[in-house]
Amino acid sequence: MLRHTPESVADAAAVAALLQIGAEIGADQVLDSGETFSASDMARAAGVPLAGITAYLAALLAAGLIAETEVPGDFQAAADYTDLRHQAGYVSWAMNANGPFIDHARAFLTDPDQAARTHRRNGRRVAVSSRWIGERAFYPQIVEQVAASGALRVTDLGAGAGALLIELLHENPTRTGTAVDSNGAACAAAREAALASGVLDRLTVVERPIESLVDDPEPVSGAEAILACYVMHDIVADDRTAQNVLGALRDALAPGGFLAVADAVSYAQQPQERKFSALFTYLHSTFMSVHLPTEQEWLDKFDKAGFSQTRTVPIGLPGGRLFVASR
Amino acid sequence: MLRHTPESVADAAAVAALLQIGAEIGADQVLDSGETFSASDMARAAGVPLAGITAYLAALLAAGLIAETEVPGDFQAAADYTDLRHQAGYVSWAMNANGPFIDHARAFLTDPDQAARTHRRNGRRVAVSSRWIGERAFYPQIVEQVAASGALRVTDLGAGAGALLIELLHENPTRTGTAVDSNGAACAAAREAALASGVLDRLTVVERPIESLVDDPEPVSGAEAILACYVMHDIVADDRTAQNVLGALRDALAPGGFLAVADAVSYAQQPQERKFSALFTYLHSTFMSVHLPTEQEWLDKFDKAGFSQTRTVPIGLPGGRLFVASR
Repeated sequence: MLRHTPESVADAAAVAALLQIGAEIGADQVLDSGETFSASDMARAAGVPLAGITAYLAALLAAGLIAETEVPGDFQAAADYTDLRHQAGYVSWAMNANGPFIDHARAFLTDPDQAARTHRRNGRRVAVSSRWIGERAFYPQIVEQVAASGALRVTDLGAGAGALLIELLHENPTRTGTAVDSNGAACAAAREAALASGVLDRLTVVERPIESLVDDPEPVSGAEAILACYVMHDIVADDRTAQNVLGALRDALAPGGFLAVADAVSYAQQPQERKFSALFTYLHSTFMSVHLPTEQEWLDKFDKAGFSQTRTVPIGLPGGRLFVASR
Repeated sequence: MLRHTPESVADAAAVAALLQIGAEIGADQVLDSGETFSASDMARAAGVPLAGITAYLAALLAAGLIAETEVPGDFQAAADYTDLRHQAGYVSWAMNANGPFIDHARAFLTDPDQAARTHRRNGRRVAVSSRWIGERAFYPQIVEQVAASGALRVTDLGAGAGALLIELLHENPTRTGTAVDSNGAACAAAREAALASGVLDRLTVVERPIESLVDDPEPVSGAEAILACYVMHDIVADDRTAQNVLGALRDALAPGGFLAVADAVSYAQQPQERKFSALFTYLHSTFMSVHLPTEQEWLDKFDKAGFSQTRTVPIGLPGGRLFVASR
């Protein structure tokens, strides 16, 4: 299921901590860029004194996360950097993004409502670790579905910083995309990334909650593919909301179009996914009051919303499924 | 090097988060006991409402960390629980115990001294994750050294909750032990554990900092083995303190006695240890102002302190070594 396993869990834990430190200081943009860089480049990008960056780079070099180039003082990410970052994503999501839940577990297990008001997760930490996981675990399967269908008009719901849409715009130069996200900072990041990547002219960014599409479906209207990665589980728990939102998406799709939902099922039981699925299900239930549907409940929800047929495609995220629901 | 690798890093990350939640609410004592237990037993031990524990146990069951027994409503830890907990230790230490460092990385890289005064680690979280790692990674090698030497009088420096000494007291019923720790809570926990384990009559607990042994070596005087697991690196960075403390330990040993130091070396370069060693070295240097010696520097320090010979024994902790220095 996972293509690259590090030497040991200790390796993955160390990589996660080192990369999380990078994400905290804003050095991740330099590491992720694929370009060569110097300590000064990173210090400038992160806004951190050079001495701090020099020591940090020495650690990354010793860990094999970066390598020296032929130019003295210039570095580049190691060949297996994106594989290591993917594995680190699970560690960062479980332990760092959910840190406030874990640190205040007693409060959540005693009075969940009060605790949820007091102890919130950091949105950027959740987004960064989710991206590290997702871009290897289910982006490839979604790109494959869209490419195979030939869909040219694609809307991504909960698009975040737009990475998946930008990949799809590169995959086909005649494709156009719409990114919908309720978070203003995410929308700004998506515009910035599209500009840097040269596809801003084919990307529309809309700052809106997904539920608002019921009353005004314009951002999805006529789409040949609508994508929703790990955002729908917040919406579908309530049957009526699920039917309204999924129904509106179905009605908005172009003939032959499809809705692709990558999301989690409740307590998946396969040996290779039961542990991470247990954590994911439990954290959502006890710490976020989100009750995940089982695989069958997901399928029933698409059926009730009027989709003619839904296929389940396996993805690389334990406890995750890709549901492809045809109009 | 590591005997049991979980299916994937996602597994280990999930296990770490689930067990860390248990440690936060005090449910770990129930899971670690090896006894069967009910939800009520755990709720009582943790002082958490039954509903919270019931949901937590459902997650542990789904994850395969506990199993149902023949008695309905009674559970026991899974057969591979201690293996999984060992792996989780690396994740918990890297991400949870060091959480304050990671979350405030920008402050530490900008003004380390000020940041170190403001953002401190939680001692219990450090101790719990260190124990999860240590009891599999180097306890066996130390027990083997002590057993092979036949040492009957053993002192453990930085003994924490006394787990290693208690194991040694069980290994030989004529052995006596002295636990030295500067932390009062750790000393109380060691007494409690020794009582529960039936060896309190052979254990002396002394609440003292290790440095105080220079002026008053009574707790180590005449010991046939002195142990120090991951506590000496705080002391040996300064050459003079190192020589004073190590010299006092050497002088206090019985003829034929030895000092066994399990500790970290700076930036170990073996492929299977470079990543965790890089994190360990970097965190100590930048976030704790502790500069680890290299393997050769460690050996030189034992030599300078008057030990006749020091052997290096490999241990299962990446970047760690067991130094056995003979009087």
